[in-house]
Amino acid sequence: MSYHTQSFNEYIAQHHERFLAEFAKFIAQPSVAADNRGVQEMCDMVAERFRQLGAAVTIYPTAGSPVVYAEIGPKDAARTLIIYNHYDVQPEDPIELWDTAPFEMVIKEGVIYGRGTSDDKGELLSRIQAVEAWLKTQGDLPVRIKWVVEGEEETGSAHLADWVKEHAAMLQADGVLWEGGGYDEAGRPMFGLGGKGLAYFELRCQGPNHDLHSSIAPIVVNPAWRLVWALSTLKDANDQITLDDYMQHVRPLSTEELALIDAVPMEFEAMRERWGISNWIKGQTDHQARRDYIAAPTINICGFHSGYGGAGSKTVLPAEASAKLDFRLVDGLTSPLAERLLRAHLDRRGFTDISITDLGGEEFAASRPGSLVQHAAIAASQDTWDKTPIMYPWFPGSGPMHPFGVVLGIPLIFAGATWHPDIRAHSPNENIFVKDYVESMRFTAAFIARFASLEA
Amino acid sequence: MSYHTQSFNEYIAQHHERFLAEFAKFIAQPSVAADNRGVQEMCDMVAERFRQLGAAVTIYPTAGSPVVYAEIGPKDAARTLIIYNHYDVQPEDPIELWDTAPFEMVIKEGVIYGRGTSDDKGELLSRIQAVEAWLKTQGDLPVRIKWVVEGEEETGSAHLADWVKEHAAMLQADGVLWEGGGYDEAGRPMFGLGGKGLAYFELRCQGPNHDLHSSIAPIVVNPAWRLVWALSTLKDANDQITLDDYMQHVRPLSTEELALIDAVPMEFEAMRERWGISNWIKGQTDHQARRDYIAAPTINICGFHSGYGGAGSKTVLPAEASAKLDFRLVDGLTSPLAERLLRAHLDRRGFTDISITDLGGEEFAASRPGSLVQHAAIAASQDTWDKTPIMYPWFPGSGPMHPFGVVLGIPLIFAGATWHPDIRAHSPNENIFVKDYVESMRFTAAFIARFASLEA
Repeated sequence: MSYHTQSFNEYIAQHHERFLAEFAKFIAQPSVAADNRGVQEMCDMVAERFRQLGAAVTIYPTAGSPVVYAEIGPKDAARTLIIYNHYDVQPEDPIELWDTAPFEMVIKEGVIYGRGTSDDKGELLSRIQAVEAWLKTQGDLPVRIKWVVEGEEETGSAHLADWVKEHAAMLQADGVLWEGGGYDEAGRPMFGLGGKGLAYFELRCQGPNHDLHSSIAPIVVNPAWRLVWALSTLKDANDQITLDDYMQHVRPLSTEELALIDAVPMEFEAMRERWGISNWIKGQTDHQARRDYIAAPTINICGFHSGYGGAGSKTVLPAEASAKLDFRLVDGLTSPLAERLLRAHLDRRGFTDISITDLGGEEFAASRPGSLVQHAAIAASQDTWDKTPIMYPWFPGSGPMHPFGVVLGIPLIFAGATWHPDIRAHSPNENIFVKDYVESMRFTAAFIARFASLEA
Repeated sequence: MSYHTQSFNEYIAQHHERFLAEFAKFIAQPSVAADNRGVQEMCDMVAERFRQLGAAVTIYPTAGSPVVYAEIGPKDAARTLIIYNHYDVQPEDPIELWDTAPFEMVIKEGVIYGRGTSDDKGELLSRIQAVEAWLKTQGDLPVRIKWVVEGEEETGSAHLADWVKEHAAMLQADGVLWEGGGYDEAGRPMFGLGGKGLAYFELRCQGPNHDLHSSIAPIVVNPAWRLVWALSTLKDANDQITLDDYMQHVRPLSTEELALIDAVPMEFEAMRERWGISNWIKGQTDHQARRDYIAAPTINICGFHSGYGGAGSKTVLPAEASAKLDFRLVDGLTSPLAERLLRAHLDRRGFTDISITDLGGEEFAASRPGSLVQHAAIAASQDTWDKTPIMYPWFPGSGPMHPFGVVLGIPLIFAGATWHPDIRAHSPNENIFVKDYVESMRFTAAFIARFASLEA
């Protein structure tokens, strides 16, 4: 089936100001999972918006933020679609780098600013508004929609996997429409079939019980040195991971996967320019950089902090040192494996004084190519933008796809294109373009139509 | 000669309250060289206090804090003594850890609290007050005193060496009485003939032009990793310095020096307990720890900062990383040598992307044993406390002794004992004992008497 695009488009044009006013209310409500700020209020606001659609809404408490679950559309529809979004946002720090108030929606020259505009309130609300427009202009939905909106994606979705497992029967579906993709420097929509896993650890080493005068350095252990030495054994100066017994678990890429990866166009020159670098790490070619970006596991230092960091000099032997590491996981690697091998590696070298704190993990998940949701997304991209999307076999980033894509085994797609290359998600001046917000509604409608009608 | 101790002691007892009131004014005047706060006011206050003694006072501007120079005593005295002190103090941060206001003198149970009480306003003023008491009770001084009070000791005395060289003729003397020593856990005065040198560098590595999402780690250089790898080549996990061509410059210890070092008593058990550690680094014996503490050069990480350091997790590839290092220098090593070899070492390994900023240096300086000032200090210690002081051939710490002790070639001694083991210099709740403040006056008088009268 298709749908009546003219009436749909007229509706969203007529209600444009109201839709943006709703968006402003969503932005004005902080919902920072990291410090549980406004999370319940935002949860209630999302639930209420679903009720306005006529959806059956349940708020599921978890040990963290509640999950908003909404069902809408005919119970006897031939196909069922899960849509995944999240209502929590990143902290607004560093607030002094914002040009506008983080929790105030400000529109300037076609750009909507505010925390959560792009990640992920804009997409969530534009999808809801698309369903409203569908119902008002097309009649009933052609599919059953099961909407899962969690509230702790930004802190690692610690409770979502268990929630999914507990509600496996309720969550049966034919496909999952994940958070949207974006588009690249050349304006091509970027869709994906999954994402890398993530293991996040804090390593900490304690030295003396307080900072000492550095003249004592010949006789008292310096925890910053300990951490430097320990880290230097995990990856060498050629950027090769040297964590014992780790890389052998990486499943080699298939010829098909390599072909999919090599087919992903990337605007390398524009990326380097945007990031202010002249070369890729290790002097990689663009060709190899593409493969590594998509398919290489990482051990990345997110932060290292110890001792004095102010202006000028202070002669101190620090009491402690800590480093935050994230491991991006490809197929074959898991977060428990990473932690076990890391502990063994450190112990084997005498670094038993370095503690490891697990700060959360998500497992690798990638759906097989050729699914209904993939075909529906490609068709909807052509319907909306007249463009064939770039198709990542999996994204280099991570998210809680594993419970849906692997545990429940439902084919999954990242599709939509609300993210442009300067979106500043997680950063000051987060933004989304007004045009992308509106086009997200059009894409959602086209996706629903295609998902309902394409041959399986 | 000796001096009339009874009248001296009666005078300082009679004037005790006024002396403490003067001290309170010194403490109440901030003089933080790091941010040039109150430096000129403190300089003027010190100069005025010298004028009250009848000294000839000159304030010498420098490119940093001014030097207060005061001469007093007979111009035709047989011997001339330089006294070195400083009027600047460390910043009061972290202010929330102070139990009292940092720039307010508070006396509780025999302890005087406030920034600068021990480092170095207490000693400076008690020495001035001792000269006042001498003049009031003994008549003229038996020596010419040339007092050098600088105002940027806490930031590395960047301009003092040049000032000394410019005024070499004016600064001719028979000995230098340096800032005082302290006493150890067992109450023994600790004097010293010099100190290690210091080279302080900031290493910095720039990655992308802003923090990136950590999913980009396979292709963009991480400056924290670069710095970890670079640092790990400077000292190995056995705590051996591996900086190319460096250790060969260390002058081996003479048998005489080893004997002096081995004779220094140290309260090892109390030190470990105070610092909350169970063993010395590398499992050193106490015997070896003493030798290393006094005689080993160091490369110490004072601070390492990069990326995210807040609570929980943030998946970021940091834009930059920096580390502050101090090198304690023994004889044979100099700060220019350390910088030159460090640069060459890093370049040789491809770390040309790591910049080195010189944050100041001071050279090793130790006077030969057997000088007049050393003998005078030992005798004055016996006069004051009936104790033979511990004599460090040089202290493990650093200071601007080199211009006096080596460039001018004047024998130098750290003597006095205003520092007890929990003095908290450079830290919140800096303090000095009332009794030590008073005894500093008695020691100063005894030192002047002995310096004037001992046979050379």
